[in-house]
Formats: sequence, C-alpha cells, structure tokens
Amino acid sequence: MSGAEAGAPLFDRLCLVGVGLIGSSIARLAKERGDIAGSIVATARSAATLARVRELGIADEVEPDVARAVQGADCVILCVPVGAYAKVMAQMAPHLSPGCVLTDVGSTKGSVVRDLSPLLPPGVHLVPAHPMAGTEHSGPDAGFASLFQGRYTIVTPLPDCDPDAVEKVRELWRRAGSNVETLDPATHDKVVAIVSHLPHLIAFTICGTADDLAEETREAVLKFAASGFRDFTRIAASDVDMWRDIFLNNREALLEMLARFTEDAQALGRAVRWGEAEFIEDRIRRGRRIRRGLVERGQA
Amino acid sequence: MSGAEAGAPLFDRLCLVGVGLIGSSIARLAKERGDIAGSIVATARSAATLARVRELGIADEVEPDVARAVQGADCVILCVPVGAYAKVMAQMAPHLSPGCVLTDVGSTKGSVVRDLSPLLPPGVHLVPAHPMAGTEHSGPDAGFASLFQGRYTIVTPLPDCDPDAVEKVRELWRRAGSNVETLDPATHDKVVAIVSHLPHLIAFTICGTADDLAEETREAVLKFAASGFRDFTRIAASDVDMWRDIFLNNREALLEMLARFTEDAQALGRAVRWGEAEFIEDRIRRGRRIRRGLVERGQA
Repeated sequence: MSGAEAGAPLFDRLCLVGVGLIGSSIARLAKERGDIAGSIVATARSAATLARVRELGIADEVEPDVARAVQGADCVILCVPVGAYAKVMAQMAPHLSPGCVLTDVGSTKGSVVRDLSPLLPPGVHLVPAHPMAGTEHSGPDAGFASLFQGRYTIVTPLPDCDPDAVEKVRELWRRAGSNVETLDPATHDKVVAIVSHLPHLIAFTICGTADDLAEETREAVLKFAASGFRDFTRIAASDVDMWRDIFLNNREALLEMLARFTEDAQALGRAVRWGEAEFIEDRIRRGRRIRRGLVERGQA
Repeated sequence: MSGAEAGAPLFDRLCLVGVGLIGSSIARLAKERGDIAGSIVATARSAATLARVRELGIADEVEPDVARAVQGADCVILCVPVGAYAKVMAQMAPHLSPGCVLTDVGSTKGSVVRDLSPLLPPGVHLVPAHPMAGTEHSGPDAGFASLFQGRYTIVTPLPDCDPDAVEKVRELWRRAGSNVETLDPATHDKVVAIVSHLPHLIAFTICGTADDLAEETREAVLKFAASGFRDFTRIAASDVDMWRDIFLNNREALLEMLARFTEDAQALGRAVRWGEAEFIEDRIRRGRRIRRGLVERGQA
C-alpha cells in the first residue's frame, strides 16, 4: 500500500480547509504522530481563526486564500460546514494538484458527492469520509488529538474511485485511532439521520418547547431540569452553522426519520390517552431491549 | 421543630412500602445516618425482594403484610409504582396510626392526591413528595445512600396539611442531602412532564423507530449508534412498571407537552423541507441558549 510504510508520512503536504473542532483535532493529531503528513497547511475563512491557529502552532503554514492553500497538497480535507462545500469547491477546484486525494469530515455524504463531484478535476480522487466524533464545543481551541480514538469513521467511496486513494483515507483514520467502516452514501445518510440528526433536532426543539411554557412553569422547569433533561439536551449545545447545514443537506433522510418517529410517538401518546397499559409496556420493554443491545455492542 | 433535634431520630418507626431503587436507598441512608428513624420496617409485594432486603440487612424488620407493616409507624413512605397506590392504600389505610406522616416518592403528584386522599384516616397527615433522583437501574440492589445528595426533592403539601408534618418530611429530605422545594401538585406535574416524562417517552420511542428500519439499515444503526445516540437513549433503560404508571398517571400534562413538542418539531421539520435557513438557525440558537442557561443554573 503506497505511502503507508511504518513511520513514513502518509501524505507529503496535507491541507486542512477549516480549522474548527475537527480540523484542529486533525492538525494536532498529525503534529503529534508525525506519520500522517510531512507538512500541514491550514486555511479558513475567518482571520480570527487563522490567527488563533498560528498562536496554537498546530499547522506549519497558515494561508488565508484557499486557492493558494491547496496548491501542491497531495491531500485536502474539507472541515467546514457541509453547506459551504459547493462554494469552497468552486474556489479551489482549479488549483487542486493531479493525484491529490480530496476528502472531508462532513456529517452528510449524499450532499458531499452532489456538491463536489461536478467540479472534480481529472486525476483528483474524491473519497468522502465521516469521523463520528465530536463534542458540544467548537472552534480551534476545542480540538484535541485523541478525539477520534475508538470512534467509528465511515468512508463512503464512489464505485469508480481509485482504490489506492480510498486506502490512504482509511489508513489516515486508522492512524487517528478510529474503527474504519465503509458504507454507500445513501445508507450512511439514513443511519446518521436516526442516530444523530434526529436526536439533535429533538434536543434543539424540546429546549424551545420548555422555554415557551408560561412564566411560572418555565421558571420551575429551568430550576428542576435535573440531570435527565440536562443529559438529554446536552447535544443541544452544538454549533449553529454546522447543524443548520446538516439538517438542510440530509433533508430527505431526516424528514423520513422525523415522520416515522412522530408516528411512533403519537401512537404511544394515543395509548397513554386511552389507558392502554399493555401497549405502553410493550413500547417501554422494546426501548429497553434495544438500548441494552446498544450497550452490549459498545462493550463488545 | 418537633423531632428534628440534632442526633435525635426524626421518626421512631419508619415503614418503607416498596424497597426498589428509591426505597432501598432511603433504607441505606437511614441506617447510615441513624438520625432519620429509630427503626426501619420494610414491606414489599415480592417475596424475592423481601428476601434480598433481609440479606442486605438494610431494614430492622421485614414484613410481607403491608397492613401489619404500617402498624405503629409514625412515618410511612410509599416507594411503589404510582399505579399501585390506590390498592396499597385500601390495604393499609385502616391500620395507619393516628399522627402518622404518610408520604411518598412518586414522580406524579396529582394522581397521588387523587388516590390517597379519599381513604386517609383522620389524624394521618398526607405530605406527597418527589425526590428527583434515580438511575436507569432498579431493585433493592440498585440503591445507595447518597442517591439524593445534591438533588432536588419537591414537596407538594395540600393547603390544609399540618405544618409540623410538612416540616418533618422536608427535614427528612434535607438529611438525605436534597435541596427541598415546594410546588403545588399541578405545577409539579407540568414541570416533570417536560423535564422528565416527555424525554423518557421520546427515548423509548426513538429506540423502537430505529429498530423498525429495514434490516440492513438497522444493523448499521446498531453498529454506529455512537455516543450521541447512546447518551440520548440512556434513560430508555428505565423500569417498565414504573414508567407505565407514570405515563398513565400524568396523562393530561404529558399529552399536553407531547402535543406542544410535536408541533414544534414539525415546525422545524417544515423549515428543513422548505430550506428556511433563518428559521432553523433561530431554533438551534434558542436551544443552545436555553441549554446554556440550564448549565449555568446547575453550577450556580
């Protein structure tokens, strides 16, 4: 496998487009390990972010212009919100080097293929990927090298993709400590719609529902939002731009899962209204069983 | 305040009706502190539970018959699922001693007043209470003395209740380490409907929604249900009987909150469908703001 000899950097020149939680974690990881990239160039839209990256010393070069940043890179990783991909691609596509591996870390994959493929220069290899790791914090200070350790990274290569390029992206994530898996983009989007996007939609929503209650009740809600509600809504602290873009770029799958979930919640609500104890028990028992299955799989 | 002198037990004879997670935690706490009860008698419907309580040595007496168990007790705490209250009350009411404080730990309070008040003997003081503490585990082995430490306990006394009895229940929970607050039963039921009951309904439901997906997607869902979904569904591991009873006994408030939440989730889903970025951003920003407020209050 080319470029994956022990100790040899996987890429000569790695370009990170976007240096938030994920981008800065990759930069820290690459700096720490030394076997991921010979040098790291970072670019971002915001001057403040770039100034901070310079201060943190997590990239070898900091370049405000994305077209210049990607020049000569044999790997470019998009780490911006997925809604910005089409615009960034238009700016950088003419400057990508032949043989370059273009990959990303976005939480939606169908939209990535849709937005990046049309402008892909010949000889540039597109290998979309999604490291399933994150915290509720964002920005270059939030990153850390071990973020991907023990987490899944899903790679969603297109059927005609160069196998060497796919293998390099897989190896990058293995070196990050991830369990690397492969899915087609459509299956990926359905899976994350239910395990991540819908829970976020619910968490954002229920905070608002609570806040809309009458003054007295709202005050009590805020006071008594014990650990259950606080744990449940932890993911509601996530980044605004990132989640707006995820919702808009996984629309079909998210709306499908929201519709299914709403039907199921209404069915349980109906059973509560009509006092159907057996139906309620059955749903609770089922939830417990599936939840236990998750825990067992997580431990296995 | 009678019976609350430092070191003196608050009650002579404390009877715990039900010895699951909460009941056994109170027993352990009372044993550990010594200033809550002179002696502890435990009763439960299940012989296996009582045998286990005997083995654990967390009660001074174990009595299978609830009518005998409550005799001579100056405090009785109901720690069974709220759906069992009416039946238990019918069995024990004639045997409650005059002056006895009857309290409980149920997660619904309107239903408790509804089910216990009609049979309340003269001279017995009903002081409903709800310690907002728990884990996803159940049974006498799951309890621990510090379960209530730093958590809220909401007391919901009726307007005509004896102030000394109310103060004794408040002091019991202060000695358990709880922050004791007072609400009327209806406000309590609305607050817990949104901060606890609806999140549980959602968590039970979304596990089932995930499990209903087509074979291939379901397998991937179980595999990739990363920490987000696992954290989000942690509360779905909770006890079946307890949650069936909570749903059925806080029906009005729960259905009201489910209806509000569903409207709000549908509004966000509609904005996703029609690409209304500003609406989506606004909802996410609001969720974040409220979530931050919760954390700040928690730290304050």
